[in-house]
Amino acid sequence: MARVSQEHLDARRRQILDGATRCFTRNGFHATSMQDVLKEADLSAGAVYRYFRSKDELIVAIAEETFALIRGAFAAAAEQSPPPGPDLLIAEVLGTILEVGAGEPGADPRDFPRLMLQVWTETLRNEELADLLRRGFEEISGVWVGLVEAYREAGMLPADVPARYIARTLIAAAQGYVTQQALFGGVDRGMLRDGLRGLMSMGGEAPARD
Amino acid sequence: MARVSQEHLDARRRQILDGATRCFTRNGFHATSMQDVLKEADLSAGAVYRYFRSKDELIVAIAEETFALIRGAFAAAAEQSPPPGPDLLIAEVLGTILEVGAGEPGADPRDFPRLMLQVWTETLRNEELADLLRRGFEEISGVWVGLVEAYREAGMLPADVPARYIARTLIAAAQGYVTQQALFGGVDRGMLRDGLRGLMSMGGEAPARD
Repeated sequence: MARVSQEHLDARRRQILDGATRCFTRNGFHATSMQDVLKEADLSAGAVYRYFRSKDELIVAIAEETFALIRGAFAAAAEQSPPPGPDLLIAEVLGTILEVGAGEPGADPRDFPRLMLQVWTETLRNEELADLLRRGFEEISGVWVGLVEAYREAGMLPADVPARYIARTLIAAAQGYVTQQALFGGVDRGMLRDGLRGLMSMGGEAPARD
Repeated sequence: MARVSQEHLDARRRQILDGATRCFTRNGFHATSMQDVLKEADLSAGAVYRYFRSKDELIVAIAEETFALIRGAFAAAAEQSPPPGPDLLIAEVLGTILEVGAGEPGADPRDFPRLMLQVWTETLRNEELADLLRRGFEEISGVWVGLVEAYREAGMLPADVPARYIARTLIAAAQGYVTQQALFGGVDRGMLRDGLRGLMSMGGEAPARD
């Protein structure tokens, strides 16, 4: 039996995931069949099923890759000390997400955000995917909590607000921008950066809590 | 032919929409049939089809009601001069959304956010719904732009950032919280209020723009 190099296996896996991503973004998750993925990746059923046995496995793998991408963008941005402000950091990560697949021929900048929206909705019926998203969200929230503590130590954050709430709010803003791009288009990272910058400039103590 | 009062027509319409909302939140939009809605509303096909000819018409009506609810929450909150800070205002509106249907027997607080997520995804294949959401989003953005200008006039907003970007960022934060509630639960309006309050306390000028 011929030995197959790891490099070859990785390249084949990449070829399948890229094909699946193109199918899902173009036609939606539900309207795509495994047959469509085989055709798009230009591979036989045997070659594909060796890596992924179902559409669900493909969507889980794509979601895992997306989380790795987001973590990588954070790691790159957060290496500086003190870390860049949240307006710059979160806009950087949003930009990374908005640019996925942008280089593909015929790509629409709304494609990947639309796929993310479909993945979110898919968690309502797919427990494995729901768990994966929950873990990914908690991991990213954890990174943000560390960043928020660093802002506090650097004297950049006077309010006595739980770091977790600031982290959740920043992630929410990025998720909302992904939603707006999926639904309406016309989003760029500068809007989120400047919107947060404006809010940050409001300063001082907010009115008393209710 | 017996005359039917407007009150009766409105009550009947309400009965159908409440039944449809319960079906969609419980089983998802795609897994719900018109038969399920008839059964849930305890009405005959003739009685229902007089008001709504399809699931698509039902979902459009529910989306319209949701926008009316959000507009109403803003109108109530924004009557004060100067308006309450964005942390209080947006948390108020989020709270209104999170509480929809909470009084129903057996309701899960994730039900309505999950329906919103499904509606967003549904726009990817339903042009009428996409147009409705676009109009609703633009209307709400317009209200926010007015509020942001009022903050600026009251000296509460020093940064020279387009009002539209601040509005989009606040709406994004609320959308992201709806997504987090749909996916993971455990969200309340206080998190968004305090998260925004923390960001607002960071104050001053953000680092130079890239």
